[in-house]
Amino acid sequence: MSSGGCPFAGVGISLFAALAGLGTILMNTKRFMRQPLEVRLPAGVDRDEEGKLWFREISEFWKGQCFSIRIEKIVYSGKSQLQEILIFDSEKYGRVLVLDGAIQVTTLDEVAYQEVMAHTPMHLINNGECKRALVIGGGDGGVLRELAKYPEIQEIYICEIDGDVIELSKKYLSTTSIGYSDPRVKVFVEDGFKFLQSMINEGILFDVVVSDLSDPIGPAESIFNGEFLELLAKVVEPKNGVAALQGECYWLHSHLIRQLVDKSKSLFKNVSYATIAIPTYPCGQIGCLVMSSNPVTVPRRNGGVNPGDLRYYSRELHSAQFVLPKLVEKFVYGD
Amino acid sequence: MSSGGCPFAGVGISLFAALAGLGTILMNTKRFMRQPLEVRLPAGVDRDEEGKLWFREISEFWKGQCFSIRIEKIVYSGKSQLQEILIFDSEKYGRVLVLDGAIQVTTLDEVAYQEVMAHTPMHLINNGECKRALVIGGGDGGVLRELAKYPEIQEIYICEIDGDVIELSKKYLSTTSIGYSDPRVKVFVEDGFKFLQSMINEGILFDVVVSDLSDPIGPAESIFNGEFLELLAKVVEPKNGVAALQGECYWLHSHLIRQLVDKSKSLFKNVSYATIAIPTYPCGQIGCLVMSSNPVTVPRRNGGVNPGDLRYYSRELHSAQFVLPKLVEKFVYGD
Repeated sequence: MSSGGCPFAGVGISLFAALAGLGTILMNTKRFMRQPLEVRLPAGVDRDEEGKLWFREISEFWKGQCFSIRIEKIVYSGKSQLQEILIFDSEKYGRVLVLDGAIQVTTLDEVAYQEVMAHTPMHLINNGECKRALVIGGGDGGVLRELAKYPEIQEIYICEIDGDVIELSKKYLSTTSIGYSDPRVKVFVEDGFKFLQSMINEGILFDVVVSDLSDPIGPAESIFNGEFLELLAKVVEPKNGVAALQGECYWLHSHLIRQLVDKSKSLFKNVSYATIAIPTYPCGQIGCLVMSSNPVTVPRRNGGVNPGDLRYYSRELHSAQFVLPKLVEKFVYGD
Repeated sequence: MSSGGCPFAGVGISLFAALAGLGTILMNTKRFMRQPLEVRLPAGVDRDEEGKLWFREISEFWKGQCFSIRIEKIVYSGKSQLQEILIFDSEKYGRVLVLDGAIQVTTLDEVAYQEVMAHTPMHLINNGECKRALVIGGGDGGVLRELAKYPEIQEIYICEIDGDVIELSKKYLSTTSIGYSDPRVKVFVEDGFKFLQSMINEGILFDVVVSDLSDPIGPAESIFNGEFLELLAKVVEPKNGVAALQGECYWLHSHLIRQLVDKSKSLFKNVSYATIAIPTYPCGQIGCLVMSSNPVTVPRRNGGVNPGDLRYYSRELHSAQFVLPKLVEKFVYGD
């Protein structure tokens, strides 16, 4: 019985597979020629009994469990001033970006996360009414790519703390970083706190703000607390603006989610947690916390984006993704 | 910032943790005393650099990726006549049942799967109208436990091919196998094909049939094809009966899902794929394929089960779980 086939598999993967095959040959040759190379394997990478390379996502943030992907070819491995960066090709998930040991993007499944994070808030703005959008984090460019699908947006700001993530994404993750090629995009490489403070000082407001941050460890640690949410709330256009925040996994971090929800509720009238299915994030699940003065669980927008441009998000999914398992609902919103 | 807390964590886990702590001490002592014990580690189990035991779920059925859980204590390891059986305690997921290298049940997240598989079909039968139910597979007893919550059901048949799975679940997975203690349950240890054929011969029909089978490799291989679905359709009460089938993962096996959907559509008027979020199944996602002569995406039932008895399923989730990502929708139902 056939077991193959994933509807998300892109055209880029066969090219990756070809490159990766060559890479494996080269690496195996190197391995037998110069054994000491092994000690230079990037953090999180090891070989199985057959000599095949695997990336293993081990973290205190999801203790006692680990997701691993077989590597076909290591494309880049290095350190920016802020974090370790690893980019590799895999058979199943295409090209993979890892920051400080945590998977950020794979070309197979990134569409799930990027589309929900961008199109959920955009569908809460009436068609033609989103003039200015902001992405905080999201250096890979995927959320930019999704926002750029709306002709009405005049300016798309992005504030990413690590310039190396932007440059490496442009170089190695072209299908994701294509968002940067849109002339409406304005790039700021700086700390999110400082950036929000300067926007507040200049009186610049945004109709949509997407906070696409990694987990609250490493560079994003300080950004993920109450003070950050207070600043964020001040740059969201108060009447109809919408913010969407990377909302963590309900199987792993329900206390953290509750903390984020409680804080957000003190700043916005409507706050809801949407669930995203994505296999390469821990437990295959991550949230998108959506905040606005208007209700968020039903789309307001009609038009403004070509439905053919969407691969994961739909108007029906918009509402369905806010319906949570009973115990999660209770934990996130209950007394 | 606190990172702990899972809303599904049950009371049993602290006991497991205590037992597991003792187990680890014993194992580590053994390790240093009798090194050759290592060669007797069950398939899929190895030690990390710190000497800690991990279960790694490696399979050709999800090639190139692997989910691992740290083991606190191996509870049982052996072989039935049909498959390898491993039961262990883990810090994060509580007690875990593994058949032929594939995770079947963990006490943390099993509720997601069992509730959707049982309550989705039950909510498509009017209150008071489900007289007889059948579970094929599901030897752990979890689906039985959920069906037993409906007083109206007079007989709950279960056909499980591997008697050892039943006995070991009764012994080691008490919170799941509690379903067997209901006096309405009738257990048949035999092949699903033969069982369905004998039900057809005897003219016995079921209002609800839940096919809770493992992946189509190993004992469940032959059962997961068109012929099995044809037999299954013949034991479902034709007017209002409902069948629910383990529907595989859309990230991994979209071709197989399409094959199942196409075959089911030739047998039932309404066929829909519901998605289940469950971290210990590959990619954190599995499907429940629901089939009936009536529409399946909206619940018909009012009452008959105490909503307080449900931890994952709700009437709202019933409908939401049938809304799939756009590309999946296209692949599963499209031309």
